Amino acid sequence: MTDSPLLKPSPPRPSGRRANQLRDVRITRHYTKHAEGSVLVEFGDTKVICTASIAERVPEFLRGREQGWLTAEYGMLPRATHTRSDREAARGKQTGRTQEIQRLIGRALRSVFDLNALGARTLHIDCDVIQADGGTRTASITGAFVAAHDAVGKLLAAGKIAQSPVKDFVAAISVGVFEGAPVLDLDYDEDSQCDTDMNVVMTGAGGFVEVQGTAEGAPFSRDEMNELIALADSGIKALILKQKEALGIQGV
Amino acid sequence: MTDSPLLKPSPPRPSGRRANQLRDVRITRHYTKHAEGSVLVEFGDTKVICTASIAERVPEFLRGREQGWLTAEYGMLPRATHTRSDREAARGKQTGRTQEIQRLIGRALRSVFDLNALGARTLHIDCDVIQADGGTRTASITGAFVAAHDAVGKLLAAGKIAQSPVKDFVAAISVGVFEGAPVLDLDYDEDSQCDTDMNVVMTGAGGFVEVQGTAEGAPFSRDEMNELIALADSGIKALILKQKEALGIQGV
Amino acid sequence: MTDSPLLKPSPPRPSGRRANQLRDVRITRHYTKHAEGSVLVEFGDTKVICTASIAERVPEFLRGREQGWLTAEYGMLPRATHTRSDREAARGKQTGRTQEIQRLIGRALRSVFDLNALGARTLHIDCDVIQADGGTRTASITGAFVAAHDAVGKLLAAGKIAQSPVKDFVAAISVGVFEGAPVLDLDYDEDSQCDTDMNVVMTGAGGFVEVQGTAEGAPFSRDEMNELIALADSGIKALILKQKEALGIQGV
Amino acid sequence: MTDSPLLKPSPPRPSGRRANQLRDVRITRHYTKHAEGSVLVEFGDTKVICTASIAERVPEFLRGREQGWLTAEYGMLPRATHTRSDREAARGKQTGRTQEIQRLIGRALRSVFDLNALGARTLHIDCDVIQADGGTRTASITGAFVAAHDAVGKLLAAGKIAQSPVKDFVAAISVGVFEGAPVLDLDYDEDSQCDTDMNVVMTGAGGFVEVQGTAEGAPFSRDEMNELIALADSGIKALILKQKEALGIQGV
Amino acid sequence: MTDSPLLKPSPPRPSGRRANQLRDVRITRHYTKHAEGSVLVEFGDTKVICTASIAERVPEFLRGREQGWLTAEYGMLPRATHTRSDREAARGKQTGRTQEIQRLIGRALRSVFDLNALGARTLHIDCDVIQADGGTRTASITGAFVAAHDAVGKLLAAGKIAQSPVKDFVAAISVGVFEGAPVLDLDYDEDSQCDTDMNVVMTGAGGFVEVQGTAEGAPFSRDEMNELIALADSGIKALILKQKEALGIQGV
Amino acid sequence: MTDSPLLKPSPPRPSGRRANQLRDVRITRHYTKHAEGSVLVEFGDTKVICTASIAERVPEFLRGREQGWLTAEYGMLPRATHTRSDREAARGKQTGRTQEIQRLIGRALRSVFDLNALGARTLHIDCDVIQADGGTRTASITGAFVAAHDAVGKLLAAGKIAQSPVKDFVAAISVGVFEGAPVLDLDYDEDSQCDTDMNVVMTGAGGFVEVQGTAEGAPFSRDEMNELIALADSGIKALILKQKEALGIQGV
Repeated sequence: MTDSPLLKPSPPRPSGRRANQLRDVRITRHYTKHAEGSVLVEFGDTKVICTASIAERVPEFLRGREQGWLTAEYGMLPRATHTRSDREAARGKQTGRTQEIQRLIGRALRSVFDLNALGARTLHIDCDVIQADGGTRTASITGAFVAAHDAVGKLLAAGKIAQSPVKDFVAAISVGVFEGAPVLDLDYDEDSQCDTDMNVVMTGAGGFVEVQGTAEGAPFSRDEMNELIALADSGIKALILKQKEALGIQGV
Repeated sequence: MTDSPLLKPSPPRPSGRRANQLRDVRITRHYTKHAEGSVLVEFGDTKVICTASIAERVPEFLRGREQGWLTAEYGMLPRATHTRSDREAARGKQTGRTQEIQRLIGRALRSVFDLNALGARTLHIDCDVIQADGGTRTASITGAFVAAHDAVGKLLAAGKIAQSPVKDFVAAISVGVFEGAPVLDLDYDEDSQCDTDMNVVMTGAGGFVEVQGTAEGAPFSRDEMNELIALADSGIKALILKQKEALGIQGV
Repeated sequence: MTDSPLLKPSPPRPSGRRANQLRDVRITRHYTKHAEGSVLVEFGDTKVICTASIAERVPEFLRGREQGWLTAEYGMLPRATHTRSDREAARGKQTGRTQEIQRLIGRALRSVFDLNALGARTLHIDCDVIQADGGTRTASITGAFVAAHDAVGKLLAAGKIAQSPVKDFVAAISVGVFEGAPVLDLDYDEDSQCDTDMNVVMTGAGGFVEVQGTAEGAPFSRDEMNELIALADSGIKALILKQKEALGIQGV
Repeated sequence: MTDSPLLKPSPPRPSGRRANQLRDVRITRHYTKHAEGSVLVEFGDTKVICTASIAERVPEFLRGREQGWLTAEYGMLPRATHTRSDREAARGKQTGRTQEIQRLIGRALRSVFDLNALGARTLHIDCDVIQADGGTRTASITGAFVAAHDAVGKLLAAGKIAQSPVKDFVAAISVGVFEGAPVLDLDYDEDSQCDTDMNVVMTGAGGFVEVQGTAEGAPFSRDEMNELIALADSGIKALILKQKEALGIQGV
Repeated sequence: MTDSPLLKPSPPRPSGRRANQLRDVRITRHYTKHAEGSVLVEFGDTKVICTASIAERVPEFLRGREQGWLTAEYGMLPRATHTRSDREAARGKQTGRTQEIQRLIGRALRSVFDLNALGARTLHIDCDVIQADGGTRTASITGAFVAAHDAVGKLLAAGKIAQSPVKDFVAAISVGVFEGAPVLDLDYDEDSQCDTDMNVVMTGAGGFVEVQGTAEGAPFSRDEMNELIALADSGIKALILKQKEALGIQGV
Repeated sequence: MTDSPLLKPSPPRPSGRRANQLRDVRITRHYTKHAEGSVLVEFGDTKVICTASIAERVPEFLRGREQGWLTAEYGMLPRATHTRSDREAARGKQTGRTQEIQRLIGRALRSVFDLNALGARTLHIDCDVIQADGGTRTASITGAFVAAHDAVGKLLAAGKIAQSPVKDFVAAISVGVFEGAPVLDLDYDEDSQCDTDMNVVMTGAGGFVEVQGTAEGAPFSRDEMNELIALADSGIKALILKQKEALGIQGV
């Protein structure tokens, strides 16, 4: 990839990583004790607590249908970031950015869940960033899948559902154009200076669930997009191996 | 495009359009009388009023810097849609969807504006949907560019700025996979049944500003994505011609 | 009227209209396609989209009673006015002025509706000002009646109700004391300088539904009030003819 | 008045009052100790605490102009009424009715205040209903004038202003058509059953500041309106005598 | 008490009261006419209207259980205080202080109510301060008990409940360390300068329901706490006598 | 203590702890990397992240005075608890409980800070519960002190302040009457069943900053209160040793 004739050779990354190198990824299950699924996911210095909670009810718009629901919320501790942000609960509303991210997490996970197989219950995903260093939404999706998988495991073990509603794995990674070169898994230093930032969500089978690319500076070209997509694809394959390893399984 | 070996031949679209055919696009300038720029943009039955208003001040975070700002808000009349939605002003907050769209419009337009050349003033873009039939965000971006261009023209004519802050054209279109085939410019009937929905924002020079693809049903493949991007590229070229025609100019 | 011994001869109006002359009034039915009733009403440069939407449910306080409800909401596009106003949805609440107007519209329309004949359903009126030049509330009431009449027509045509709940016509107009003389149908230039501003709502049978007079400057006298009421009466008669013409009917 | 040939003879009122008879009106000055002006006003069983507070600053829109401001707020204790209402502070917003009333109180008082003579300060009027039996807004205006007069008296006594900004007296009363007959000063029993309800605000010189008439049931006629206005006029004259008596003065 | 060897002799209090002397306490029943229980309680210049309203329903979390509920809300008129405070209803939320106080009032009253004996209904307590001079929360609890007792009396008289749910009396008082000496029933002058402020809620049987002591300045010692508790105990005994006297009874 | 003649011998605690035994207390400094002070505090299974952030500005009410401020906010992850709670940011407001706790944390810390010595800056304390098992407010105060101490250390090290504003240590613990016997440091099992719950905040010098005791069931007696206070005193001494140990110092 780095020998593409179209792009400049990759300049040194602030972290010293290679262009296609993920940060250290750690997935710790059973991180807190009350939730049906609870995971601490770390992409380098980005740390997110992802919990999956089961509620034996469904939202109003699904009443009377034999179908479940999965929804996600996202938050950040006020001092997860370099400078303190206002606490959303104190301000009385979530920012547009927060809403965008939690909608993305929900869509990503629903793409691999069979909501009929879940029965008339809701899976609440909560992703709370305790330390931010870029990539909080991609870490959230990657960790939340494992938490949701654990929660579903409890339903299966308790005999509440007969078969797993999990149809496939799902994970997410960011890619971007940093100093003219495509790189994988942007940290904060890169994210705050990059020209293009793209978040990609893919399934274990290699299908795309979401592609969200934004030119922060100069617009990006078709070739850059192709390079970025290829990088993301390799990163997500590695993340899904991490998920499988954490769950101690070989496949779904 | 329809002879791609990878994809099924395009099925008939509900509207009878060809796969790569836009709806009738109409851009009416000077639609309302008070705003510095005011456009009614129509993508078929989707109708959006886009205004650009100039304020001689900048947000707090830019105080004291010789730089302008451009920001966008989006709304929909309660009965712009098939069934009436709650009025956001009465509910007391904007939905996540609304916030997502208005953030997208703002980023799209800022990508082609030189905010230094704008001086210490703010360009407020308002996109209000009076009738919705799919593609309201892409119509908004396409119409808002023309309204912003008109507003800037007033600043130039009044001698308030010496050169135009407009660096390039920008327009947006949706593409999607409908019954297995990629199609351009989804209307509501298609949008509500499609597997993949992608919104693409591009500049006059052909650079990508935003690519937002979502698998509503089955994940999409790399090949599908390539087909969709190509369709979007052709659609945006046509939209930018419409913008130029409306503005009575040949280039920026 | 202009030869009243009590009042000064009417000075020239900014618009050149005679004291008892309405602006051009246009009522365009079927303006948008989704609503059961949809009207663009124009009083000169004041333009309001009025829709009437039928919902097959009633508010909580009417549950279990065989009666319908009619309620109204009002809004203004941020740049409908000379200078841009904050978007109410973004601010998170409606102004007192907005609430006052939408309550007035609701009361005005309910005065000519037999809510028992409507059955257990709600008629939602939405009045959204796309261009403001004075008299937005009176234009709203006048247009909303036509939209509601159309919505009711659909219920009748569908056999959902056996007889029309519309008991009479209703319309509204503003009158005021401008430079010492009573004038009909104030536009923005007059409204912003007048001493007294009065909004009057009347039925086709000539009964008063609302009279709201406010002294913006000097208090007004009993004689002035009488002159204003007479002007309003003549204006509303003309408006109801416009409504009948738009609906293509001779009476209720 | 009751011998009008146009109207039915006045039926017995629930309270036994004559058609043109006010309830017992009591105005108690210096009711609470902190406010610059503090009045308990009672219209029969309707009891409102009206305070006038002086703040040595003006709202944003008046900054830098040598002019004062007068603004009013209105509230009701949750159990001032027959059945308990939600506390607005707990619900997190004021109702449309509350906003309508406080805007009315503010306009009424501003009509008799010379805001230039007040200097760069704000007079905050607070009207809080501790017991409601109809006519809370008219009692509020009538009592608030006395509180504001007292507050202004303190400014004069302290030498902060050289001349009184009070240009005239102002008071308010309700009138209505109860069982077909016009009556003065509606109490709750009448208000909840009347066909027409009209609130009238007038100055000491007999000018109209506000006339707000609403047909709750059948529309009202020109003759009824004339009768109501005459009743209101007589009632306000009596109220202004009460204000003068309370203030121990003969005129302004 | 003032001869304690541990504490300095009590300095003169601003009000001239002895260290263990309450202000004049007055409890006026039937203060407003609509509520099932309505009391004006005065602790010197602190005046609070306490009403108790009965609703024949229970909150969601008690549905289907044969149990009642008691809840309290607290408010202050904007100019109950030395300088005007913002109206909470206008600001759109209650302060933390307000919430703290209303939660305290609710807990205090529930401690002496048998909610099973109340049946499936809710007792709403509203405490609204019309004049503040320190001790508004303790006056509120003391007055609210009498209002609640009256409301319960109406249920008993109407045969809606067979036995009183009132298990004991409850009252509250503040104590504090003022210029080094413990004093009873702080007024505003003392409260704003004291080192320690403690609110104590006790039952007729002498049990503690709440003890909330805060060091505003220097921390307080164990001995000071003991002195304060003893003072509070004597004050509450006196308040409960006042409650009994107001209710015209000898015991519960 | 357990041989008090007044109280029943202490029954077995669910956790098997002795009546006067704290849970395992762990204080981990430098827990997250961005904040000037960052501590994970654990009282058994209760885990709270406490950060202290320095802002070079003060709130409006302190403008122009050479004094600093310290303020605290508190939150809980939605699934920190046995069953998921609503996210306060999504609901749009903080509960009364949250506000009570964060006000308590702020008061507790301010009691040992010399705000003049802090200079014109604000210390923001954030306490976010990631796992709750009783005692979250006492753990928060205990951990927040260490975080604040670290933040102040950075100011001293950077030469921004000449002397430490920290006047003394401060810590907090809960005590309660569980099955008739006083016990120290209630966990969730005890907290949810206890009759009396008391939170005590004390300084290193042994002074009381806050005492908040509530009878959840039966009122508590003077003797019980004395026992509880003695237990709290011993617990806080142990906590302050833990704080000193974590900070690696012998005194302030």
